[in-house]
Amino acid sequence: MRDAYREQLDAIDDGLVEMSRLAGTAMGRATAALLDADLVLAESVIAADSAVDELYEQIDQQAFDLLALQQPVAGDLRAVVAALRISATIERMGDLAEHVAGVARRRYPASAVPPELRGTVLEMGQVAERIVQKAGSVIASHDVETALELETDDDRMDALHRKLFTVMLDKDWPHGVETAIDISLVGRYYERYADHAVSVARRVVFLVTGEKYEDVQARS
Amino acid sequence: MRDAYREQLDAIDDGLVEMSRLAGTAMGRATAALLDADLVLAESVIAADSAVDELYEQIDQQAFDLLALQQPVAGDLRAVVAALRISATIERMGDLAEHVAGVARRRYPASAVPPELRGTVLEMGQVAERIVQKAGSVIASHDVETALELETDDDRMDALHRKLFTVMLDKDWPHGVETAIDISLVGRYYERYADHAVSVARRVVFLVTGEKYEDVQARS
Repeated sequence: MRDAYREQLDAIDDGLVEMSRLAGTAMGRATAALLDADLVLAESVIAADSAVDELYEQIDQQAFDLLALQQPVAGDLRAVVAALRISATIERMGDLAEHVAGVARRRYPASAVPPELRGTVLEMGQVAERIVQKAGSVIASHDVETALELETDDDRMDALHRKLFTVMLDKDWPHGVETAIDISLVGRYYERYADHAVSVARRVVFLVTGEKYEDVQARS
Repeated sequence: MRDAYREQLDAIDDGLVEMSRLAGTAMGRATAALLDADLVLAESVIAADSAVDELYEQIDQQAFDLLALQQPVAGDLRAVVAALRISATIERMGDLAEHVAGVARRRYPASAVPPELRGTVLEMGQVAERIVQKAGSVIASHDVETALELETDDDRMDALHRKLFTVMLDKDWPHGVETAIDISLVGRYYERYADHAVSVARRVVFLVTGEKYEDVQARS
């Protein structure tokens, strides 16, 4: 009985890790689709989001069954409730990758990203992939040190996000309103994506330590 | 024992209704701050978001305690899990109202909304207030008919959102890049706000009927 119980708890964590892997692949491919104006790749990202949604529903069901049948208490109950929160967060990250791909598709055959912002958007994509990979690793390992690293990646993402606005608001911006709108939305998608990854790390830190992320961070 | 249990379940629903009321007030005030370039009002919206966050944490704790101490099953367990999902959604709606207020504050003493879009933004604010009010009513009443109405309001919000882009992408748009960026972000905040309200209604419909929103809608 207890072994089956532990397996059910582990299966939920495995599902969360797999969701984060899919959300990471999606954002990596969405970034490539955006930079290369690759319509086929953009559409493959959009189609693939249903796999994230299915995992989300599966984890919901697993968590519900576990609560109903095993009636976990204390730490295990906290873990299940945290898993419900985390799965919703990663599902949103998948949506954000899909939105980036949607901008690539809408602007095809043009690229939505003008030459002077390609480097910035490329790095935003790289930070996004790195931060979601760390979030997945934190879910699997419950490692608090790694969890605290995500804040640094998120700071980098915020700096890149601000850079987009600095470039767009330059009085000599030559790319017009449509490109500015696309870039401001894309920038927001990456920035939110990183925020969500940090919120996953925050939940794990609280689950493991019983303390808030900031408090653990202040001591480290 | 059972009476206390029922009271605990009701207290969670009351908290959700109160959260939706606060998120609605916040969006109404944020819209006014945006249209009137009212800095004091914008800052009051931003400051008030902590009340939504506190309710969110309180509901988390209430749900956790209820799961731990009462070990609800079947419909009651579904209601508690749904409440966890719904509280997270309304918390995000509060954030989106705060973001709208943030745009008002950033552009002060100017208004972020040019004259030809004031009517559209005003109506987006009205739809947002209406849809969150209905979401709160659906949480309180579990009324499926009202829940199905939210889709119509959301369609209206999407139409208003598209209208923003039509105006901004007109070749004679005279308000430059900064205003276009602000309006595209504000438009997204309202559109997401309405989406979240619909997702609250969807959860309640599933909780009440055991069926998906679309399936119930198709028959109505």
